[in-house]
Amino acid sequence: MTAAGTPPNWRDFSVPALPPLLGAALDCFVEHGYHGTAIRTVATHAGLSVPGLYHHYPSKQALLVGIAESAMADLYARSSAALREAGEDVEARFALLVECLVLVHAYRWEHAFIAASEIRSLEGPARAGHIAARDRQQKLLDDVVAEGSRLGRFATRYPKDASRAVTTMCTGVAQWYRAGGPLSPEELAARYVQICRGTVQAR
Amino acid sequence: MTAAGTPPNWRDFSVPALPPLLGAALDCFVEHGYHGTAIRTVATHAGLSVPGLYHHYPSKQALLVGIAESAMADLYARSSAALREAGEDVEARFALLVECLVLVHAYRWEHAFIAASEIRSLEGPARAGHIAARDRQQKLLDDVVAEGSRLGRFATRYPKDASRAVTTMCTGVAQWYRAGGPLSPEELAARYVQICRGTVQAR
Repeated sequence: MTAAGTPPNWRDFSVPALPPLLGAALDCFVEHGYHGTAIRTVATHAGLSVPGLYHHYPSKQALLVGIAESAMADLYARSSAALREAGEDVEARFALLVECLVLVHAYRWEHAFIAASEIRSLEGPARAGHIAARDRQQKLLDDVVAEGSRLGRFATRYPKDASRAVTTMCTGVAQWYRAGGPLSPEELAARYVQICRGTVQAR
Repeated sequence: MTAAGTPPNWRDFSVPALPPLLGAALDCFVEHGYHGTAIRTVATHAGLSVPGLYHHYPSKQALLVGIAESAMADLYARSSAALREAGEDVEARFALLVECLVLVHAYRWEHAFIAASEIRSLEGPARAGHIAARDRQQKLLDDVVAEGSRLGRFATRYPKDASRAVTTMCTGVAQWYRAGGPLSPEELAARYVQICRGTVQAR
């Protein structure tokens, strides 16, 4: 598999998440911000003329929408695969979902960085669509934590708040984790599974 | 006390954190992004002419630096006051520091939102200064969690990672908490103290 997209193995990050044009736009947005990026800069970075770029994406906004939609779709596809692998046990479901969240945000920190900082730059329906995708993603973890709480496997008195806190700390990895640090994404994910088990007070 | 700044009581958010010109710039940066904000827009919002604004702040960059420095100084002053109030007990120190982090990021979410998304727009020494301020702030919690771990009061195997996770979830409140929701900042802070005690595995 060489095309961009979500590979069959949710732990595999060897394939670029974005097609080349969106990847070029992402690089530029990370460096200069969405508003600070000229469409010409994206075209140059992608090796295209400005009309050539517009042929594929009619506006800078379309590039941002493409990035946000691809990132959320990739995260949801990987999360769903992780949950399928985990099966029925609620602690396994929690552990693999946390592992998946940390891996995605360590390997693909640029997507999350842009998602967190440039949501306000998404317009109209694209903004509503992104928020809906984020809510759908959050619900995966909310449901797992609620079930763990109902079964008495997680002792937290605040399952909904704890679930959001877990999401925040795992997605927050994108704000500080960079390749070349002391821990690999996989080592970091293993630690976060333990830390997040504490957060929900797994018994 | 009517001037902007940090009040003597670290739980008091009745006084604006920023002087009026920086407050006007913050509003504009939150709405349009740093790069998307014209200096004229800030001047209009502040009721000044552009030369009048430049008289106080020589550039848009100076406004961003002013916001970042004020926000970090306010957070550190409140955190230090919370630790003084807590005294020597490590669990009390942890609880009041978490309470302080959540209150600041619920009441003053705009500062943290701009700090998280526009750091890349800070140039040269200002950027280095901001990172140093952030490290100094993080060290307050790192030291508390390390001490709790050493004393056997916190069972986490990863005190440093758990401390960062706690910071991330508390500062992340600024990304989603808005006034008018079901919980007051104070109620949210009380829940986060419990959740974060789980994260460090307080016994």
